[in-house]
Amino acid sequence: MNGSIITKNTKFLIVGLGVIGGSYAQALTRAGYTVSCITRSEDSIRYALERKMISYGTTRVEPSLVAEADIIVFALYPEIFIKWIEDNQSLFRAGTIITDVTGVKGGVVKKVQSILHPDVEFIAAHPMAGRERSGVEYSDAAVFKGANYIVTPTEANSARAIATCRELGEILGFARISELSPEAHDEMIAFLSQLTHVIAVTLMTCTDCEGMEKYTGDSFRDLTRISKINDLMWSELFLLNKDALLAQMDAFSREFERFRRDLEAGDSDSMRATMRLSAERRTRFDKK
Amino acid sequence: MNGSIITKNTKFLIVGLGVIGGSYAQALTRAGYTVSCITRSEDSIRYALERKMISYGTTRVEPSLVAEADIIVFALYPEIFIKWIEDNQSLFRAGTIITDVTGVKGGVVKKVQSILHPDVEFIAAHPMAGRERSGVEYSDAAVFKGANYIVTPTEANSARAIATCRELGEILGFARISELSPEAHDEMIAFLSQLTHVIAVTLMTCTDCEGMEKYTGDSFRDLTRISKINDLMWSELFLLNKDALLAQMDAFSREFERFRRDLEAGDSDSMRATMRLSAERRTRFDKK
Repeated sequence: MNGSIITKNTKFLIVGLGVIGGSYAQALTRAGYTVSCITRSEDSIRYALERKMISYGTTRVEPSLVAEADIIVFALYPEIFIKWIEDNQSLFRAGTIITDVTGVKGGVVKKVQSILHPDVEFIAAHPMAGRERSGVEYSDAAVFKGANYIVTPTEANSARAIATCRELGEILGFARISELSPEAHDEMIAFLSQLTHVIAVTLMTCTDCEGMEKYTGDSFRDLTRISKINDLMWSELFLLNKDALLAQMDAFSREFERFRRDLEAGDSDSMRATMRLSAERRTRFDKK
Repeated sequence: MNGSIITKNTKFLIVGLGVIGGSYAQALTRAGYTVSCITRSEDSIRYALERKMISYGTTRVEPSLVAEADIIVFALYPEIFIKWIEDNQSLFRAGTIITDVTGVKGGVVKKVQSILHPDVEFIAAHPMAGRERSGVEYSDAAVFKGANYIVTPTEANSARAIATCRELGEILGFARISELSPEAHDEMIAFLSQLTHVIAVTLMTCTDCEGMEKYTGDSFRDLTRISKINDLMWSELFLLNKDALLAQMDAFSREFERFRRDLEAGDSDSMRATMRLSAERRTRFDKK
C-alpha cells in the first residue's frame, strides 16, 4: 500500500497477550509475519507458543526485543498503556511505528503522542471486534472477518504511519477500514459500543430475574450477551469517555420516554411509525 | 405422555401459515403427522406444498377440514384469532383441542375460553422462538431447538389438554417446556420480550445514525437485530399488555438512571459491582 512500511520481513511485537492481542498475533503469524510478545503471564505465552501464534514471548521488557520491532501493537488497558510508554520509551528504535487497540481515544492518543520522543510515531486504531470473554485462550482471528477497523489519526501523524496502520487492518482481515478523528471516534463509540453495554448491564440488573431462563427467548439473550462484561476494563473506558457517554444515555432516555408516552396514550400510529423507521435503518447494519 | 390425545394418527390443522405457523407445519410433518392448513395467501400454500411442509392447504374455511382436525393451531394476530373463533366455531368437532402461539395471553386466553362452546377446549401456549422476518418463506423448524415453550393453562383447562399441549411442545423440538398462568406469563414477557423490543427500537431511533454502519461492532448489531420489527403485530401486542410493559419500562429507566448517577459521580466501585452482578446473572441464560 502506498507509503506503508510493511514488507514481508516486518517484525511485529504485541504488548499484552489477551483476547485481542492474541487474535492479532494469530492473524499476523498466519499471514507470514514474525510476531513476538511481551505479556504478564507465563501461561499465556506457553499457550500462544504451543499453538504457534507467536515465535517468541517473554514476561520481561527485553530491550533488544523492543528495539528490533518495526511495529509494536499495544493491547493493554488505557492507563497501563500510557504508563508503559512513560517507563520504557527509551528502548524504541527510531522509525518504529506504534499502534494500539484502545476502545477510547480522547484521553489516550494525544497523551501518548505528547510524551513520545519525536522519532517514534503513534498511530491509534480501534478494531471493532471483541468477545465477551477475556484471556488469550479466547482469542480467534476469525472475529475480524466482516468487522470494522477504525484508524484515528491526529495532525501529528504522517501519511506513512496512516498507510501502515490501514494495511495492518487489511492484513488482520477486517472488512472495512475507516478513519475518524479521536474526538469523532469517541462520540461514535459512546453510542455504538458504550451505550449498548450500559443497556445490556441495566437489563440484566433492573429486575430480579431468578428462574427467568426457563421462559426466555432469543431477543433477551441477544440484548444481554455483552452484559458478561469485564468490569475493570469497561468502568475505566466509561470514565475516560464520560461526557460523550452521558450525552448518549440522555438521548436514549429521551427517546425511550417518548415511546413510553405513545404506549401510555395508546398511540398506535406513532409507535408504528417509530418501528418502521427502526426497521428501515437497521437494514444498513447487516453484516456483508 | 400421560393424558395426551396425540397418537400417530393425529390430524393437525394450522390456521395462519406465516413464519411461526410454517415452522410448526414443518416440524409436525417431519415428525410424521398429517398437517393441513388454512391461510390467506395462495402463494404461501404453494410454497408449503412444494416443500412438503403440509399435505393440504386452502384459503377458504372448509367445514370438513375443520371438523376432521384433532388439534388446531392458531398462528394469527390476536384480534384476528378471536374473530376467527367467533365466526367459525360452529365447525369444530366435539373433543377438538385448540392451541395458539400468541405472544400475549391476558386479553386472549380467557376471552377465547369464554366464547368457545363447552365441548371444545382451548389450551394456550407461547413458543419462545421467532425470527425478525415474517412470512412462510422464513419458517424453519430449527428455531425451536434449544428454545423455551410456555404453556399457559387456566382453571378451565383439563389435565388432558395440558398434557396434549406439552407433548406438542416436545414434538416441535423445544428444549424446555414450562407452565405459567396467563398473568404470570404476561409479566414475564413484558420484561423478557417486549421491553427488549422497545429498547432495540429506541436504540435505532434515538440518534441519527447515518453512515454509522462503517464504525459499528457486534454489540450494536446484537442489540438491534430485533429492531427489524413487524410494526402491526408488535404495536398490537404492546397495547394488549400495556400496564405490564409500562411497569417494566419504568423499572429499566430507574436502574438506567442509577447507573447514570454512578457514572456522573465517577463511582467506579458501584459501576463495577453492577457489572459483576450482571455478568454473574447472565451465565444462567446461556443456551444449553
